Amino acid sequence: MRSKQIYDYIITNIERGEWGAHDKLPSIRSLAVELNVNRLTVFKAYQLLKQHEKVYVKEKSGYYVCPDCAGTAADAVYHTPNGVSALQVTSQLSDIHRIAVEYQFSQAIIDPNLLPNLFLSDYVKKVFDIYPKLMGNYSTPQGDEELRDLLCQYFKRSNRVELNNGEIVITTGAQQAIDLLSRILIRPLDAVLVERPTYSAAIDILRGQGARLIPVEFTPEGYDLEAIERLMKQHRPRMFYMNPTFHNPTGYILPASQRKQLVELAERYRCVLVEDDAFHDMYFHERPPQPLFMYDTDGWVVYLRSFSKYVAPGLRICAVFARKSMIEPLIAAKSLADNGTPLVTQKIFLHYFQSERMQQHLKKLRTALQIRRDVMEEELSAASIDWQWTTPQGGLNIWLRLPNHISASMLLQESLQHSLSFVPGHICDPNNGYQSWVRLSYSLMNEIQIREGMRQLTQLAQQLATRFDFPSYQRK
Amino acid sequence: MRSKQIYDYIITNIERGEWGAHDKLPSIRSLAVELNVNRLTVFKAYQLLKQHEKVYVKEKSGYYVCPDCAGTAADAVYHTPNGVSALQVTSQLSDIHRIAVEYQFSQAIIDPNLLPNLFLSDYVKKVFDIYPKLMGNYSTPQGDEELRDLLCQYFKRSNRVELNNGEIVITTGAQQAIDLLSRILIRPLDAVLVERPTYSAAIDILRGQGARLIPVEFTPEGYDLEAIERLMKQHRPRMFYMNPTFHNPTGYILPASQRKQLVELAERYRCVLVEDDAFHDMYFHERPPQPLFMYDTDGWVVYLRSFSKYVAPGLRICAVFARKSMIEPLIAAKSLADNGTPLVTQKIFLHYFQSERMQQHLKKLRTALQIRRDVMEEELSAASIDWQWTTPQGGLNIWLRLPNHISASMLLQESLQHSLSFVPGHICDPNNGYQSWVRLSYSLMNEIQIREGMRQLTQLAQQLATRFDFPSYQRK
Repeated sequence: MRSKQIYDYIITNIERGEWGAHDKLPSIRSLAVELNVNRLTVFKAYQLLKQHEKVYVKEKSGYYVCPDCAGTAADAVYHTPNGVSALQVTSQLSDIHRIAVEYQFSQAIIDPNLLPNLFLSDYVKKVFDIYPKLMGNYSTPQGDEELRDLLCQYFKRSNRVELNNGEIVITTGAQQAIDLLSRILIRPLDAVLVERPTYSAAIDILRGQGARLIPVEFTPEGYDLEAIERLMKQHRPRMFYMNPTFHNPTGYILPASQRKQLVELAERYRCVLVEDDAFHDMYFHERPPQPLFMYDTDGWVVYLRSFSKYVAPGLRICAVFARKSMIEPLIAAKSLADNGTPLVTQKIFLHYFQSERMQQHLKKLRTALQIRRDVMEEELSAASIDWQWTTPQGGLNIWLRLPNHISASMLLQESLQHSLSFVPGHICDPNNGYQSWVRLSYSLMNEIQIREGMRQLTQLAQQLATRFDFPSYQRK
Repeated sequence: MRSKQIYDYIITNIERGEWGAHDKLPSIRSLAVELNVNRLTVFKAYQLLKQHEKVYVKEKSGYYVCPDCAGTAADAVYHTPNGVSALQVTSQLSDIHRIAVEYQFSQAIIDPNLLPNLFLSDYVKKVFDIYPKLMGNYSTPQGDEELRDLLCQYFKRSNRVELNNGEIVITTGAQQAIDLLSRILIRPLDAVLVERPTYSAAIDILRGQGARLIPVEFTPEGYDLEAIERLMKQHRPRMFYMNPTFHNPTGYILPASQRKQLVELAERYRCVLVEDDAFHDMYFHERPPQPLFMYDTDGWVVYLRSFSKYVAPGLRICAVFARKSMIEPLIAAKSLADNGTPLVTQKIFLHYFQSERMQQHLKKLRTALQIRRDVMEEELSAASIDWQWTTPQGGLNIWLRLPNHISASMLLQESLQHSLSFVPGHICDPNNGYQSWVRLSYSLMNEIQIREGMRQLTQLAQQLATRFDFPSYQRK
């Protein structure tokens, strides 16, 4: 054991309030016994604590907690009312989602009315006829083999890529995959590239793991690859968490021309690309470019393909594709995290996914989403507010820039009082910028709700603008 | 940022091989820019690295990695063939389970033939009639409200305990609950009490979080409460992970008389009791004592009630009961981990669980398991080997002591070659002891398989005993 581990341990317990200001620390001898280490190791830790002015020494008495140090890090630690201190885990997005509202534009999920419900229910029944003992069985931690086989065939057909069923792990949604990957790849202070803006839950997960987030600007033209190379050279990031296709929240697409180059950069600078591709099949006009994963020959891309969004949200199925070397630690992490995604949901997904009906559903869904996007754009355009956005060619969201003087947080506060919610831009930005941007999801509300909601939002934004009286910002 | 965080970061990267022996570290100036900290902070970290002989200094040149330090911690880091280093995550139990064998005594799961399969399938169909849009909906991270309501009513009826639906979180199996709790409660070097022996996956999870495991002996008479008080006083453990009812792997029951006292101790020493109670309803003769949770008034017990084992393993439903103060961080952790257990499995569970048929199933299941236990004991008794065990009054396992000179690992090696597996005792022990103990699960194999398997095991044990020729250990 190293003395710096003991140093950390003491600091943690001071922060938790186990030892308060002027409290005496355990003697070197007793702590050495407790931790089963040499006294010298504890002595070194105490010396370092003293050096850093965390503790002070009383002659012939011992070490005492400096009042400045005690309780300083209350932000990192959560004191619960009954005195149990638990680590604070942040989930800003889910906090917003927990608020029930009438006009729900914050959740990027598909309106259940757009799913072929009767067919789906019938399908489930068939599945239970095929596997009468389904409820009694576990999945392996890696995931159902039949499902992994099917996914290999599917990607072979659709992308001409050779995969074997050992190169897939099934997780409960893409978010679990991000969490597991960050647990096996990231240690505190590791640099991780993320797009700016990005998926807010990914920010929370990566930060929770202690990562230093290095933002990569994402524009309608893609990334600046030279800037990325500089960042990779300078920061040696362990991972680049990316969502290059119908990006959340912006809807942007990374051009095909940049994809191969980026994989080469990843290889050169030994940076794992975590490619989150949840919206791949939700295009409006033409199919998006091939995933980066298809250009990867050396195992630097981990591909997350969630089917949760549009196949069947209730099932929460995500496939993680990676080369064998990454799969092994991933399976071990999944084993410990929950020992495997429920078999029931995997089997239902498998049979639904390979059905004819599924393709028909997708086609209809794309049309329905496109109509909702159009309605939202129509209402936004009709408003006498100078907000701006780029028309998304797929996905579920419009990334809207409010006139500069309107704060998204203030607008959200007002909106919630009128039972309307959206995602404020700053929670999608590791730098906490994008204060005047909002993400509006058009996937959950129907056309009428979208029209009413957008009119409501327009009115609230206008009131805010008037209140702050910056007429020059309003549309002429 | 603290210099010791920078110290850790450098050590991690030396261990990963990012910097090898005699490689030059970044200059103080460049690292200070990189990490956005004061140069003095980096200087302090480098001084400490030098002091600990991790790096050496070349005059007017910089800091270089000491050859002794480089690559020393290969055990903590996993180098994958393509050069990506991923943290090694250990899951010993799941490694054993991954081996397909004919006689499977290592997995403590219920034989799917003992579940009312046809009824279950019919049930699922009914559920989809009730909720035709089920597949299109997500659960909240906390879990389905209807299910949480039902569980409150159930515990009110069965245990006369008042709960509200805000005091429950639904997780995907008990293992996820253990993982989430250790993530919010445990920091490196924290002391955690665990029974000896205990559930091997819990050892892996807690160790993965950096906990120091302090074993508590569990005997057929229960714990030694005075010893526990001494341990709590001395080590100030953050948590006691326990499985007091039909304990895994031993089958022991903590007597009712000790339960209330233990809760009082937990309160006095501010130690969270994590009570894993997966086998509560699987008793053979009489109901086990009330859970410790029922004695808790002040929020020191977190109660994990998995229904995965016997209601429907395919669903993987576990309910975590805790006071509000612990629930909040738990929901946040669950949000980040997977954003909620699939709604489909929660709704199916809910309707099955409250059915008449469920109670009938449980009754039959108890009888069937008891018969299997009897058959296993019969065969073990008939063998001319001096192995010993305590008859379990519930649960799924027999905890068997081999004659001392037979190593469970060697027996397992032999057994796997004859397509038979079990859990060797040492992986259930944080101290890596119990080298001559094995856990035999009687829940998955049928009576014929149990008879054949036990005869096979007897033969292999006898051969091992003969090979090492310690006739005195054999039964007279």
